[in-house]
Amino acid sequence: MAIGRKTVENLLKLTNPKWKTSITRVEPNKLVTRGYSQEDLIGKISFPEMVYLLVNGELPSEIDSKMLEAVLVSFCDHGVTPPSTQVARLMASTGSSMKECVSGGLLSFGKFHAGAMERSMQMLQYLALNGVPEFRGPLKSGQDVKAVAEKVVDEYLSKNEKIPGYGHRYHSEDPRAAKLIQVAKKLECVGVHTQLALSIEEILYETKEIKMNIDGANAGILSDLGFDWKVGTGIFMMGRLPGIISHVFEEQTVETPFRKLIDTEEIHYSEKG
Amino acid sequence: MAIGRKTVENLLKLTNPKWKTSITRVEPNKLVTRGYSQEDLIGKISFPEMVYLLVNGELPSEIDSKMLEAVLVSFCDHGVTPPSTQVARLMASTGSSMKECVSGGLLSFGKFHAGAMERSMQMLQYLALNGVPEFRGPLKSGQDVKAVAEKVVDEYLSKNEKIPGYGHRYHSEDPRAAKLIQVAKKLECVGVHTQLALSIEEILYETKEIKMNIDGANAGILSDLGFDWKVGTGIFMMGRLPGIISHVFEEQTVETPFRKLIDTEEIHYSEKG
Amino acid sequence: MAIGRKTVENLLKLTNPKWKTSITRVEPNKLVTRGYSQEDLIGKISFPEMVYLLVNGELPSEIDSKMLEAVLVSFCDHGVTPPSTQVARLMASTGSSMKECVSGGLLSFGKFHAGAMERSMQMLQYLALNGVPEFRGPLKSGQDVKAVAEKVVDEYLSKNEKIPGYGHRYHSEDPRAAKLIQVAKKLECVGVHTQLALSIEEILYETKEIKMNIDGANAGILSDLGFDWKVGTGIFMMGRLPGIISHVFEEQTVETPFRKLIDTEEIHYSEKG
Amino acid sequence: MAIGRKTVENLLKLTNPKWKTSITRVEPNKLVTRGYSQEDLIGKISFPEMVYLLVNGELPSEIDSKMLEAVLVSFCDHGVTPPSTQVARLMASTGSSMKECVSGGLLSFGKFHAGAMERSMQMLQYLALNGVPEFRGPLKSGQDVKAVAEKVVDEYLSKNEKIPGYGHRYHSEDPRAAKLIQVAKKLECVGVHTQLALSIEEILYETKEIKMNIDGANAGILSDLGFDWKVGTGIFMMGRLPGIISHVFEEQTVETPFRKLIDTEEIHYSEKG
Repeated sequence: MAIGRKTVENLLKLTNPKWKTSITRVEPNKLVTRGYSQEDLIGKISFPEMVYLLVNGELPSEIDSKMLEAVLVSFCDHGVTPPSTQVARLMASTGSSMKECVSGGLLSFGKFHAGAMERSMQMLQYLALNGVPEFRGPLKSGQDVKAVAEKVVDEYLSKNEKIPGYGHRYHSEDPRAAKLIQVAKKLECVGVHTQLALSIEEILYETKEIKMNIDGANAGILSDLGFDWKVGTGIFMMGRLPGIISHVFEEQTVETPFRKLIDTEEIHYSEKG
Repeated sequence: MAIGRKTVENLLKLTNPKWKTSITRVEPNKLVTRGYSQEDLIGKISFPEMVYLLVNGELPSEIDSKMLEAVLVSFCDHGVTPPSTQVARLMASTGSSMKECVSGGLLSFGKFHAGAMERSMQMLQYLALNGVPEFRGPLKSGQDVKAVAEKVVDEYLSKNEKIPGYGHRYHSEDPRAAKLIQVAKKLECVGVHTQLALSIEEILYETKEIKMNIDGANAGILSDLGFDWKVGTGIFMMGRLPGIISHVFEEQTVETPFRKLIDTEEIHYSEKG
Repeated sequence: MAIGRKTVENLLKLTNPKWKTSITRVEPNKLVTRGYSQEDLIGKISFPEMVYLLVNGELPSEIDSKMLEAVLVSFCDHGVTPPSTQVARLMASTGSSMKECVSGGLLSFGKFHAGAMERSMQMLQYLALNGVPEFRGPLKSGQDVKAVAEKVVDEYLSKNEKIPGYGHRYHSEDPRAAKLIQVAKKLECVGVHTQLALSIEEILYETKEIKMNIDGANAGILSDLGFDWKVGTGIFMMGRLPGIISHVFEEQTVETPFRKLIDTEEIHYSEKG
Repeated sequence: MAIGRKTVENLLKLTNPKWKTSITRVEPNKLVTRGYSQEDLIGKISFPEMVYLLVNGELPSEIDSKMLEAVLVSFCDHGVTPPSTQVARLMASTGSSMKECVSGGLLSFGKFHAGAMERSMQMLQYLALNGVPEFRGPLKSGQDVKAVAEKVVDEYLSKNEKIPGYGHRYHSEDPRAAKLIQVAKKLECVGVHTQLALSIEEILYETKEIKMNIDGANAGILSDLGFDWKVGTGIFMMGRLPGIISHVFEEQTVETPFRKLIDTEEIHYSEKG
């Protein structure tokens, strides 16, 4: 009996598939995400639960879901001061589309802007797992954490480097950080990563009067929630996206197109070299 | 009395400010979004409530908030079949960063892919406001809606054009659309836009056996929730972002970098012209 | 004799190839672009000749190559005044990478900024082919062109619309446009599209004292060179890319990172609605 | 006599300008780039000369200009095999605009794809300036170069790392590299960086049969031409842009929109963990 062409073709494809995924299985009239039918999830789980399910592969506990909700809400907006928002609005002013302005905004999260949370998560996760030479990890709550925090602050200060997650150019005390920590404590969501972040703040405040910012607080909390530091900027993008979209919409509907944001007399020309 | 330089400078700036916004006021240690202190919102409102507040300028009712939650969840992921997801993963495979892969994914929402919801919202909002020449709007529930739907389907079919929000290349019946409508009915969130979308489906199914897809369902629902069609693709991006981020993370952590997704023998070369 | 698995696989692939191209054939140690071995082209043809070959499928005449060279050079840079350049520099200031800043810059070419050339090419190519109802195309040099130009200007002015390719917010006379036309005349590269662009300028200058800008001049010239209007913005991007890259490099090497381009006192807050 | 408001405003602005540049001075009806009026440059200098002028601040010698022309031409296109080209075409297939497809393509230049040239330039420029501990730089032609090359190859091989600029997944001998070196030799453009790149190739070929690729050749040549490694990917983008634009144009005009590049039966689903 002859084997049909389609059968051979499909057999060959399955032998060496180029595309593999464990996220969502697509079948005609059926979508199964991380083992759950999407029909069952819609109208039942919250958006933060879906985020957790997609990224971590399983549904979170009720408490973790509430904590993640607070984290996502905290990233919402910082007015027109962030360069990412200025970029998105400048682009909207030229008549670029929503998705273009949003992409421009997201691409503006450089190492000096919004990159701190991911670096802070990386630092906290490394320290929680490995400790420092004098206090080898995995860290346990309490005494170890404080000792490690001291070593870390010493090292950064001796190299005159900024610890990611502390200090803010507009706020001496970032109002979002304090509130997030308060929520985490109330929900009993403070694990070793957040403890470490808080210990670092304590020492840093004593020596330099620098406080934790939103990135530092969320770096601790997201690490305790089990998020890999590699998705740090990703989580920030989820939280900030509605803010950027609102600014683009405001620029498109309230302002005159193609605004002159620089007057020629504001430019200084110099010769090179 | 001499006026200080700083005073003059600030007066001049305030006379003709280049940057204006009604979204978030930034002051030292204080952030006020749409009239609410962010400290008060964190840990209190849900993410969909924040989305509604940012975009529409006020907090939604409890029911509207639940409806928006279902909408955002419904956009989560469609596996590796969408070009946007393939683009994001291809980019991840080259070693590009998370924010670059995400931007590539979002920029892939072209008019043939994910652009349908915004166009469907635009159509529904126009019709709900203006009706058709034979039945002038604003539309009232019931009879008018059906008559308008008939005229609209006729017009599209006579021009042999696709109505945005109906039909899916992988599903004869999009499982998300049916569930969303069910949730909307349960929450009593079905307004004139969703009614119109459903009437169009009814006629289209009778004549062509084509059913509403996720874009059509959400176009009706989001319009009833008061979202301007201009933020349609923006809302879709919010819902899909966690999915794209999960795929990039999976590609980065599970697959070998710089995968060869095309073998040279799979390429057909032709001469131009 | 049994047919090997690999043979079957390749046969199947060739029956229904997903990837087709007429641009470059890739073989081990061999690259053939539009019929020419790349080894033969490197060190022999100029960059504008390569651009013409890639886009139009054949090598240009010597004169056309010189004309295209002048076009590409003319797009080089407009200092820090264009929003695209401001966006690229703002992004560089946040620590984003060269490719990100460049993408942000290119995405800023919205319909109000740098979109005019493509629209101007589309208009000129349509008119050269079809004329206007009173003077049907294809247009011939001389009298027809002037008559069509008059109709076009009338139509735009009566609708109070801007004709794409005329007027500049920084220059009453764009120095690049005049020089490009001079080069085109000297090279005897003035075809019917450029004649039409010049006729429109003549009428527009008499009635409104508005002159042709760089987009209008290049729209005519590129159309006469045989470029499809759909690649208009593409050609502009080729010419502007070195300028954007220079600005990003300058920002990265001369300026302090994460500059505060907006002071909080420069922002005006308003309530919505 | 009272000082006018405008005067005060301008004085204040000039005291603390936010925007500075040495690239192009913009005045009404006048554009001066790196000291040259653009009117004088259009129709006179070549595109590679403009690239050199913009990036390096001065016009190149005739020989350097010819060399840069060959470099830019060599980057033109590699068919549909590069992920960046696949991304750009996938995006074109969804109906995204030219600038979006181009941005997607450029953002795909990750560390495993097209990032090698910049890293190779960085390595060569560091070594030419500093040498290795045993042979301190700046390097002189001849003996020093060979000794340094040996140390470098040893170090990379002992760490089992790839030296950037050598080896190609489609070519055992990259046809562009050999031709570029031949052009450089003919133009007498071979400086210490290219010598170092060639010495590394010689050793690497003897031990591992790996040859220099286009990135390695151009890394040496561009370094000898005086380009900072930080603009390496920028120069590559200039050369590749016409290729990407041609592919987007081909996809837009030859292929059916929204092509299904993955069949569902080609996907393998797995459970996580």
